[in-house]
Amino acid sequence: MAEISNVFLATLSGEPTETTPIWLMRQAGRYLPEYRAVRKRAGDFLGLCYTPDLATEVTLQPIRRFGFDAAILFSDILVVPDGLGQRVGFRTGEGPVLEALRNEAAIDALSFGRLVGHLAPVYRAARQIRAELPTDTALIGFAGSPWTVATYMVEGGSSKDFAKVKTFAFSEPVVFAKLIDLLERSTVAHLEAQIAAGVQAVQLFDSWAGVLPPNALRHWVIDPTARIVERLRSRYSDVPIIGFPRQAGLHYQAYVDQTGVDAVGLDTTVPSEWAVEELGGKVALQGNLDPALLMAGGQALLDAATETWLGFRDSQHIFNLGHGVLQHTPPDNVAKLVDHLRSLDAKGSAA
Amino acid sequence: MAEISNVFLATLSGEPTETTPIWLMRQAGRYLPEYRAVRKRAGDFLGLCYTPDLATEVTLQPIRRFGFDAAILFSDILVVPDGLGQRVGFRTGEGPVLEALRNEAAIDALSFGRLVGHLAPVYRAARQIRAELPTDTALIGFAGSPWTVATYMVEGGSSKDFAKVKTFAFSEPVVFAKLIDLLERSTVAHLEAQIAAGVQAVQLFDSWAGVLPPNALRHWVIDPTARIVERLRSRYSDVPIIGFPRQAGLHYQAYVDQTGVDAVGLDTTVPSEWAVEELGGKVALQGNLDPALLMAGGQALLDAATETWLGFRDSQHIFNLGHGVLQHTPPDNVAKLVDHLRSLDAKGSAA
Repeated sequence: MAEISNVFLATLSGEPTETTPIWLMRQAGRYLPEYRAVRKRAGDFLGLCYTPDLATEVTLQPIRRFGFDAAILFSDILVVPDGLGQRVGFRTGEGPVLEALRNEAAIDALSFGRLVGHLAPVYRAARQIRAELPTDTALIGFAGSPWTVATYMVEGGSSKDFAKVKTFAFSEPVVFAKLIDLLERSTVAHLEAQIAAGVQAVQLFDSWAGVLPPNALRHWVIDPTARIVERLRSRYSDVPIIGFPRQAGLHYQAYVDQTGVDAVGLDTTVPSEWAVEELGGKVALQGNLDPALLMAGGQALLDAATETWLGFRDSQHIFNLGHGVLQHTPPDNVAKLVDHLRSLDAKGSAA
Repeated sequence: MAEISNVFLATLSGEPTETTPIWLMRQAGRYLPEYRAVRKRAGDFLGLCYTPDLATEVTLQPIRRFGFDAAILFSDILVVPDGLGQRVGFRTGEGPVLEALRNEAAIDALSFGRLVGHLAPVYRAARQIRAELPTDTALIGFAGSPWTVATYMVEGGSSKDFAKVKTFAFSEPVVFAKLIDLLERSTVAHLEAQIAAGVQAVQLFDSWAGVLPPNALRHWVIDPTARIVERLRSRYSDVPIIGFPRQAGLHYQAYVDQTGVDAVGLDTTVPSEWAVEELGGKVALQGNLDPALLMAGGQALLDAATETWLGFRDSQHIFNLGHGVLQHTPPDNVAKLVDHLRSLDAKGSAA
């Protein structure tokens, strides 16, 4: 790509830009009143994901309000198990509820062949969003990583200690590998279909990368991610891949070195000096303001945003949070954050 | 201390030992049928903590079964807020429920003067346990660190995103500092009373150290811990202090360098090679087998235990888990783990 008009994509390609690209994880969501209105109309959460007009609307809402440099397809990492035929539901205030997988037969009953057809509405949404987005706003597609999706599939939802999925992985590694392999293929197919529909970069969310011991992290997180990156790149070499191994801590470096991602999402605990020094020469860095600072607002938010902006200045930096926007975040805080960052960019270019 | 007969205390003092000290976080607990029987008799959870005969009994149960090198006083980190006058309850299956602190008046209403008197039964339990324990088994006292205890006090219980406590800390740092300061003083007083009652080492549990951005971690975790260590040491220079900043990841090194602890608890994600290399010359290392491996059992457990044992061989190592024993762990797996480690010690000494 010789000329990239979008600063988000340019930064991912290693090109210098005059302004820092900005988007926020979970930028479309319950903190926006216009989202809550659509959500109410949609009924259940998966219905919203599977209705292209509504998914398009909620994807565009934060772009209209805040002018972010990238939109992210409104969807959920659990559409993959749903597409594979596992029963997935969302109960208000409780998070996802799945019919938990516990044995090989349950894994064998999942259907890879069903996936892309079942998720056709997601790809229609991506196509519609790309058509309706301003041309200088990038569209990001995404999937959960195999490990993180597997935690929900085996635990039957969220977990505090991951006892069931870890015990499964430790006790029956050969059977668990079948699940991870299926999820690897599913992730590739799901992301390829999104790319074919118009997304220009993809992010792999590995929200629970930080709960595994070192060997297991290598085996269930880093190796599958490396294989996914390799397969995507062989077909779509120009679509950048952002990996987000949340809470990977001491393993961020190995993740970057061994997966081949183009950019890494940093959770809120990662010091910018360390990241710029150790990772900045290899990949673009995305993050990592604490979402609670965005919720808190005021001078604390502006000071922390300045610090983040300065801290990552000597890297290919995409401004984002260290995790998703919190539900009770005042939308006005987001507007103030964006204004503040734009003014830092303006001063920075002038300097 | 010239001659220390207990391998746990010897290891903490930097002395070589012939066997690896072993104890497990939450070694007294629901996975043991004899614990469940006592728990039923005690009625509510705090009643168990505050009845010296019962707290003694459950502290000793795992020592009788498994012959660990150290017992840990049966108590809870939330006895401190309870002692300060905040309403604390435990609902079965739901975890702790506290009347959440939200403002300065609620903090001002807490009573430091009430603490040590209210917790007298805890210290009586410590004294009784020390009297009933085999002389070659060490007794560990403990407290939560100010940050971790504050998360429960402000959230009103466990949390997924720590939005309330973080927003409080970010928005009202001066008021939040009052709470942390009160908890610092309370932690020191609580640990000093335990030491006076006979505990021979103390552990600071900082279960939620891993959710803060770098500056906040320094301010609310590392600095208060350093002050607690300094105050304890000025009075009880011979009682070793173990810090456990769970999920501190990239900040483990700063925690060790800046707090002055004698030993550091490593969560399950920390690679032994890294810890031995970077931290092993400074402090004793405690950890870090994944509790899910102990629950899984079988060859996976034995292999991982061997790997942990070997990995930490060139350090002052206290064998432990990376987090507490999981509720559904078969007690027999614990017995097998201990046997296995003892046989590794025997082979190691023979070699």
